[in-house]
Amino acid sequence: MTEPAIILINPNSTQAVTDGMDRALMALRHRGGPPIRCLTLAEGPPGIETDRHVTDVIGPLLRLVERLNAQALAFIDACFSDPGLAELRQASDKPVFGIAETTYRRAAALGGRIGVLSIQESSLARHRRYLEALGLSKHLAGDRPVGLGVTALGEDAPRTLARLIEVGCRLRDDDGAASIVLGCTGMTPYRDALEAELGLPVLDPVLTTANAALATLAR
Amino acid sequence: MTEPAIILINPNSTQAVTDGMDRALMALRHRGGPPIRCLTLAEGPPGIETDRHVTDVIGPLLRLVERLNAQALAFIDACFSDPGLAELRQASDKPVFGIAETTYRRAAALGGRIGVLSIQESSLARHRRYLEALGLSKHLAGDRPVGLGVTALGEDAPRTLARLIEVGCRLRDDDGAASIVLGCTGMTPYRDALEAELGLPVLDPVLTTANAALATLAR
Amino acid sequence: MTEPAIILINPNSTQAVTDGMDRALMALRHRGGPPIRCLTLAEGPPGIETDRHVTDVIGPLLRLVERLNAQALAFIDACFSDPGLAELRQASDKPVFGIAETTYRRAAALGGRIGVLSIQESSLARHRRYLEALGLSKHLAGDRPVGLGVTALGEDAPRTLARLIEVGCRLRDDDGAASIVLGCTGMTPYRDALEAELGLPVLDPVLTTANAALATLAR
Amino acid sequence: MTEPAIILINPNSTQAVTDGMDRALMALRHRGGPPIRCLTLAEGPPGIETDRHVTDVIGPLLRLVERLNAQALAFIDACFSDPGLAELRQASDKPVFGIAETTYRRAAALGGRIGVLSIQESSLARHRRYLEALGLSKHLAGDRPVGLGVTALGEDAPRTLARLIEVGCRLRDDDGAASIVLGCTGMTPYRDALEAELGLPVLDPVLTTANAALATLAR
Amino acid sequence: MTEPAIILINPNSTQAVTDGMDRALMALRHRGGPPIRCLTLAEGPPGIETDRHVTDVIGPLLRLVERLNAQALAFIDACFSDPGLAELRQASDKPVFGIAETTYRRAAALGGRIGVLSIQESSLARHRRYLEALGLSKHLAGDRPVGLGVTALGEDAPRTLARLIEVGCRLRDDDGAASIVLGCTGMTPYRDALEAELGLPVLDPVLTTANAALATLAR
Amino acid sequence: MTEPAIILINPNSTQAVTDGMDRALMALRHRGGPPIRCLTLAEGPPGIETDRHVTDVIGPLLRLVERLNAQALAFIDACFSDPGLAELRQASDKPVFGIAETTYRRAAALGGRIGVLSIQESSLARHRRYLEALGLSKHLAGDRPVGLGVTALGEDAPRTLARLIEVGCRLRDDDGAASIVLGCTGMTPYRDALEAELGLPVLDPVLTTANAALATLAR
Repeated sequence: MTEPAIILINPNSTQAVTDGMDRALMALRHRGGPPIRCLTLAEGPPGIETDRHVTDVIGPLLRLVERLNAQALAFIDACFSDPGLAELRQASDKPVFGIAETTYRRAAALGGRIGVLSIQESSLARHRRYLEALGLSKHLAGDRPVGLGVTALGEDAPRTLARLIEVGCRLRDDDGAASIVLGCTGMTPYRDALEAELGLPVLDPVLTTANAALATLAR
Repeated sequence: MTEPAIILINPNSTQAVTDGMDRALMALRHRGGPPIRCLTLAEGPPGIETDRHVTDVIGPLLRLVERLNAQALAFIDACFSDPGLAELRQASDKPVFGIAETTYRRAAALGGRIGVLSIQESSLARHRRYLEALGLSKHLAGDRPVGLGVTALGEDAPRTLARLIEVGCRLRDDDGAASIVLGCTGMTPYRDALEAELGLPVLDPVLTTANAALATLAR
Repeated sequence: MTEPAIILINPNSTQAVTDGMDRALMALRHRGGPPIRCLTLAEGPPGIETDRHVTDVIGPLLRLVERLNAQALAFIDACFSDPGLAELRQASDKPVFGIAETTYRRAAALGGRIGVLSIQESSLARHRRYLEALGLSKHLAGDRPVGLGVTALGEDAPRTLARLIEVGCRLRDDDGAASIVLGCTGMTPYRDALEAELGLPVLDPVLTTANAALATLAR
Repeated sequence: MTEPAIILINPNSTQAVTDGMDRALMALRHRGGPPIRCLTLAEGPPGIETDRHVTDVIGPLLRLVERLNAQALAFIDACFSDPGLAELRQASDKPVFGIAETTYRRAAALGGRIGVLSIQESSLARHRRYLEALGLSKHLAGDRPVGLGVTALGEDAPRTLARLIEVGCRLRDDDGAASIVLGCTGMTPYRDALEAELGLPVLDPVLTTANAALATLAR
Repeated sequence: MTEPAIILINPNSTQAVTDGMDRALMALRHRGGPPIRCLTLAEGPPGIETDRHVTDVIGPLLRLVERLNAQALAFIDACFSDPGLAELRQASDKPVFGIAETTYRRAAALGGRIGVLSIQESSLARHRRYLEALGLSKHLAGDRPVGLGVTALGEDAPRTLARLIEVGCRLRDDDGAASIVLGCTGMTPYRDALEAELGLPVLDPVLTTANAALATLAR
Repeated sequence: MTEPAIILINPNSTQAVTDGMDRALMALRHRGGPPIRCLTLAEGPPGIETDRHVTDVIGPLLRLVERLNAQALAFIDACFSDPGLAELRQASDKPVFGIAETTYRRAAALGGRIGVLSIQESSLARHRRYLEALGLSKHLAGDRPVGLGVTALGEDAPRTLARLIEVGCRLRDDDGAASIVLGCTGMTPYRDALEAELGLPVLDPVLTTANAALATLAR
């Protein structure tokens, strides 16, 4: 008699990242709606940084989704590479949301073109291929790396914020972005300051996707 | 000291259509959040059915948005042709949502391809051009007219439902649609029965967009 | 440390019916309030269609209510015959709601007389006896069968809607009904279209009762 | 562009009574939903205590309801005599709730028979006629006056509570009441203590009716 | 995959007291937000009435908090003596709220001085020491015992209400209190009547603290 | 028939500051509850920086509160100096919240000592006197200026964040603060990043006070 829930799965195995997502979703819980549970994929790597990482988590993700399907209202694949999204959608009869796809589409629906703040140079090709596949290439104003790894984002906050603002300004001013997508959940704590500074909507993928899942279930 | 609100504008001048939207949004009001006000564009035609109609309402829409901008949290351009969406976004510093764009993107974010239920043959070219402009062409499974005008939709409900199911089935079975978008707000009362029958998510543009506006403001 | 909940029990053993109720209650969960759990009575028949069916489920219902009493805030006896309602109220110190009684009373409180849409001729005598027992006989405008069995309701949706509208119009026009009660949960997906068509409040028993249970607990 | 609201009308002209109702509805406002506005009928007597009072307010009530109809989602006729309820329902196309009718029906839906706490002996015949008209006579366990006028209820709280408990116990023990209806809004502050003491549901008419109106609109 | 919750611990072992708290928190659950679970400390005495009682429950409280820490969003130490509050805060990395401290501070934030309704003479010195420790001594208008033990509060409700009003009036009139704090959870059912009578805010510690915990988590 | 509301008054005349507060309160509006309106005191200086400024706004504040009293549920005096708080409480029969007092008390209720982030050296004496008056002096871990004026806070965000973290660390490590109070509403956008970095609760005065006002009204 477990209450059915929206189940968010963090495909990396770092519990602290899952805890951060869980904390960020508290405000949504205060708006009523079904429970949102945040799970960590035990078999995942500490961080998903390469194409190989993306491929490797698909099998374990599938098994977890199959096991939890009966108690899920919806699933959130909470990695910005949306690993295995197509496969998960075939494995479950519940809606499955990828945080990158959902956030890119919300940004596009706000009008204007999208700026993406990526962690590293190496993400750009993957993002480009994905936007291509989503049919959103022409909505992209620019995708620029801040040049800081996942853990580095949290190490020196003012430097991180400075980099985010600096790169965000170039997305806004040089590339003509009308909204900014945070390309890594490690950027979440800087969203408010970045939005205040840039004067553009700044979208956090986890919050944006959880809101979309709630809205879909409420349909 | 008027409470700021999400302002939905029905660009046609038929108050009964606005009332229907207002009624459909009641459930969202029960979820808290800011007020949602539904206005009728006095200068609009009774229904927006031609490209000329679309063009003609842009000016009056712009003037209304400019006049209400200070008391708006966001605007919803509540016609499935999203008339003047780009112009409205330039006229206001608040988010402006088009119900077609928002719903197409939400449908795309659910995965799989989109089936559109249109009123008439004559809408198809306009839809195709718009999906092209949005970069969503390849997400389209099919767009099929039910062959009933706006007022006809409400005249003989079982016939309408039968046509919606018949055409919906072809979108699902022949075209491979994984979700259905209702291409006219006159189809709203049939959503539940259609979804039960088709076994696919059926998206109503007004509800979907109001949910998206609430989620964006809650960011 | 299970969260106490409103427990709805579907006295027939068809899980799909329970799932449909669960889905219909999602909108209420978005309004906050305590959890609502939907259970299937394993010992029930696939559908409750005869007086014998009604009698046979009372024993299993009683045992289930006794077993779950400590974790319940309230119970909902989710069959339109309200099987064993009096006995369940004696077995539990929590409020026990019958969906027929609650919906009849809500309809009566709206003013005007009540029209009931029944599945089959054979239900009418049972309904009449029940309204008599509730003291609501004189509030009845009419009770008319649509002549479709439970499963038939879902088989040909336009035919079902046509029958519901046809019979609903006679309840409204010939019998003078000011509100309509859906006498079977298989009619739920047609509520919106029926209400739009008839221009009268159309009450779905499961939603109406869940709302009443929430309001009572919130007292 | 006034936000449509549930409009409660206090048919007596004592603003302090309206304020008390407004205060009691605050908890419901915290649950989201449309605005609830509380108005005082300027033309009413200070308190509605006689059949003549009931008759005299019907005309002014009708005019107020007609004037406010366009901005109302529903009306609440907030006097326990439900003055002019039938007439108001004819004057408005919105749901009109009488607080006595709604509360009696909710109490009946809880199962068991109803005990009514009345102010004075003189109310009993009116209540009896009304329950007869509602078809609820046989649900009445008893109706007992506490023998205190409206203003006296607030003058000596412990005496009032003592009388409410004393009479409530007789409703419960001698008359077999399974729930208690408060027959005067001046009894509202004692509801919690009375419910704790009697161990039965104690229904306040204003809260019960506002909850029913919200639930109906959310349908 | 238990949903994380606010965990209230009743340090006395009387389940009926815990049930009363659980019931009083229902209205807050209707406002959304995370679950609130109410537990009874099995090792506690039936009531916490002496300094020795306060000391004895600290060890069991600590062990319980340590065991539940991973599934808690916050803890509420639900005894007006805030037993072991400092120790619990060291044992957990989650916010730990004492109901006395939280309520005293909320009362102080309302402006004016605070009146405390205590059960017995013997509580006064403990309260005084605690207010001293909290730096709130000068906010105290007065602390007056009603002279009724915990169980006596529920035995003769009108007498209890009379005593609460009598002592409350002296706090208001002789001591100049601008708000009243209920010094025992057995006084909860009288809050509304007392507030209506005194015309001052009357704060119930359990409700006040649960509201503060929700607000803090929502920050 | 204006809906009664919580009225926040920004005592400085800078509309952009009021708009920022209004924006920050959006999340609370999504939790239901009464409207919250944000007003600007036309007669105030652009910023309240000196004791003279504090004194000068009291008269205009009083007149505004008197004028709006009938439509207010509560007032929030939204300047960290709580100008005229005692006088406002005498002028209104509604609860009046000062954002400094409310936030200091909430911080104290979290346990441990409080660190305050002030703008400039010159605020320290005023804060000290105020904490003294509130009886909270001994709860102060430390009060340290970041050395940036109100407008400077927004000019160079990374520098501001760096200063906030640097000074926040000293409050935490050298002074032993267990929670941090933001001493200026210009610091709001940095709250999340600061909380993530420091690992301590960081309280924003406007949000904290609005939450407290909602909780008090919901009592």
